[in-house]
Amino acid sequence: MPTELSVLTETQIRGLVGFGEEELTTIESVYPLIADGSAVMPPIMRLDVEDHNGEVDIKTAYLPGHPGIAVKVSAGFFDNPKKGLPSLGGFMMVLDSETGVPAAALFDNGYLTDLRTALAGAVAARHLANPEASRVAVLGAGVQARLQVEALLLVSEIETVSVWARRQEQAEDLAGVLSSELDLDASEFGTVEGTLADADIVVTTTPATDGVLEERHLHRGLHVTAIGSDAEHKRELGPGVLATADLVVVDSVAQSLRLGEARAAIAEGFDESTLVQLGEVVSGTHPGRTSSEQVTVCDLTGTGAQDTAIAGLVVEWATKAGVGDVVVT
Amino acid sequence: MPTELSVLTETQIRGLVGFGEEELTTIESVYPLIADGSAVMPPIMRLDVEDHNGEVDIKTAYLPGHPGIAVKVSAGFFDNPKKGLPSLGGFMMVLDSETGVPAAALFDNGYLTDLRTALAGAVAARHLANPEASRVAVLGAGVQARLQVEALLLVSEIETVSVWARRQEQAEDLAGVLSSELDLDASEFGTVEGTLADADIVVTTTPATDGVLEERHLHRGLHVTAIGSDAEHKRELGPGVLATADLVVVDSVAQSLRLGEARAAIAEGFDESTLVQLGEVVSGTHPGRTSSEQVTVCDLTGTGAQDTAIAGLVVEWATKAGVGDVVVT
Repeated sequence: MPTELSVLTETQIRGLVGFGEEELTTIESVYPLIADGSAVMPPIMRLDVEDHNGEVDIKTAYLPGHPGIAVKVSAGFFDNPKKGLPSLGGFMMVLDSETGVPAAALFDNGYLTDLRTALAGAVAARHLANPEASRVAVLGAGVQARLQVEALLLVSEIETVSVWARRQEQAEDLAGVLSSELDLDASEFGTVEGTLADADIVVTTTPATDGVLEERHLHRGLHVTAIGSDAEHKRELGPGVLATADLVVVDSVAQSLRLGEARAAIAEGFDESTLVQLGEVVSGTHPGRTSSEQVTVCDLTGTGAQDTAIAGLVVEWATKAGVGDVVVT
Repeated sequence: MPTELSVLTETQIRGLVGFGEEELTTIESVYPLIADGSAVMPPIMRLDVEDHNGEVDIKTAYLPGHPGIAVKVSAGFFDNPKKGLPSLGGFMMVLDSETGVPAAALFDNGYLTDLRTALAGAVAARHLANPEASRVAVLGAGVQARLQVEALLLVSEIETVSVWARRQEQAEDLAGVLSSELDLDASEFGTVEGTLADADIVVTTTPATDGVLEERHLHRGLHVTAIGSDAEHKRELGPGVLATADLVVVDSVAQSLRLGEARAAIAEGFDESTLVQLGEVVSGTHPGRTSSEQVTVCDLTGTGAQDTAIAGLVVEWATKAGVGDVVVT
């Protein structure tokens, strides 16, 4: 039987969703569904393609009450730049959650992943950083570093941004972009220590595998959001960081134990029973930060639930706006 | 950067691939890659959607030398018939295996899964049944029961087909279809015992959960292909069947242990170290059947490798024939 399917391109999708309050609350509203177990979210599927220096990751989730189920396929093929192609790509297929019938194909080239990841960082900061936080430090200088700062503007009155990256030139470039495009007082620092010295919030967005933010870098009142550890071999927070923090929050306990910061920390004696899910804090089941002196950490591994949420918003808004091609299959 | 993607419908796909020798050898050629470990095949991803009586299964595989990677999404939503929709559906996305870039969307509504599953049964029979096998028994009377017989015609000189199903009427209907459409001497039998009495090959294609073919039904020279057990709760071969067989072959040891016939049998004492992978027999590493008196069993759980193989053939032939719409994303 013929099925109508909407096909949207990256340009169309960028025209529909971005750094808005509704996108933020859509992402935020999903965490309680993860925390209370009502989101159905199988472990990430990963296909390694060593022959071509590539990997394919597949995430999905069903969220009660949401009209669509996103199946997100992310591809990282690291020889692509030699061929004039970007290393990272991806798309999402959206199935009708009541019938399983394909409803939309979102050829976003990874834009929606970038967006929902940045919005997740803003949700973490909104619930865990001190309310008056105005000084942000960023470790790493890739696309996500810039987007994290952009998303934080939705929830904090940011005044200064300090940037550090292994490649100093990239950090300088990012500071320049943040200054000129987002009108922030942004500068590059030569050391992690200097970058963090005055920070209220630090966001780590590196591909580090052995820790880049160390226990000695922590100071009272700091909130840390760690974005970069989304695979078994990655690690941004060095030994003792989780154990020293007053509160360690994760998007998904299962994923943090397998892919995130909890994995290495537990091997070093961190007590996993102290992990709190972000949804508990969002819903108020857990109080979150209880004093301005506490050190809080939020480890975000990225969930299929966020993909389903943002994809659902795209489909809803595309339908309303009449955007996208209809393919009859 | 704009990407061109081919979109093919079920009708177009049916016009390209079917029960042909090249399709059969394509499916056959993949088993040695599974057996020697060169196929990269993560465990099946499964999303349960209990709210809507549905499930989504995702399979994928990378095969060295194959130009595409299929990501297959199969949906089973069992309240769909009330809505005038089929229970089972599905599609495949094909990524370029060297770059990860989406190359094709195959909206086949599950046809390619049906086809490659049937062809897999024919591969099993070609390598494991007695060469002069002419009498086929089928347990189950669904779509796959019919397709298994059709595929067997590629490899055996079938003369008679005996059919049994829990719902006798369905078995009668299938026998009628096989007689009229495939010109076979097909009849329904009231009991499993009667159905198997003279059979050289029996194919089980039921959704049984506690065994339907029992040890007492086996006789010398019989080859059994079990198709139906593709989930943790399914089982078509009763206690003792695997242990009694002279040779037990599986498409994937990992999957048979988790989802297939080996799962329950091992709990009853079957020795898993005796399992042989179909690819070992196809490649000649294992001799397979060594006498006409042996009882052989092949348990097929269905692999992402087969999906990647059949999808690759569709894309290749569609490109040659200029079939399919090109979507620029």
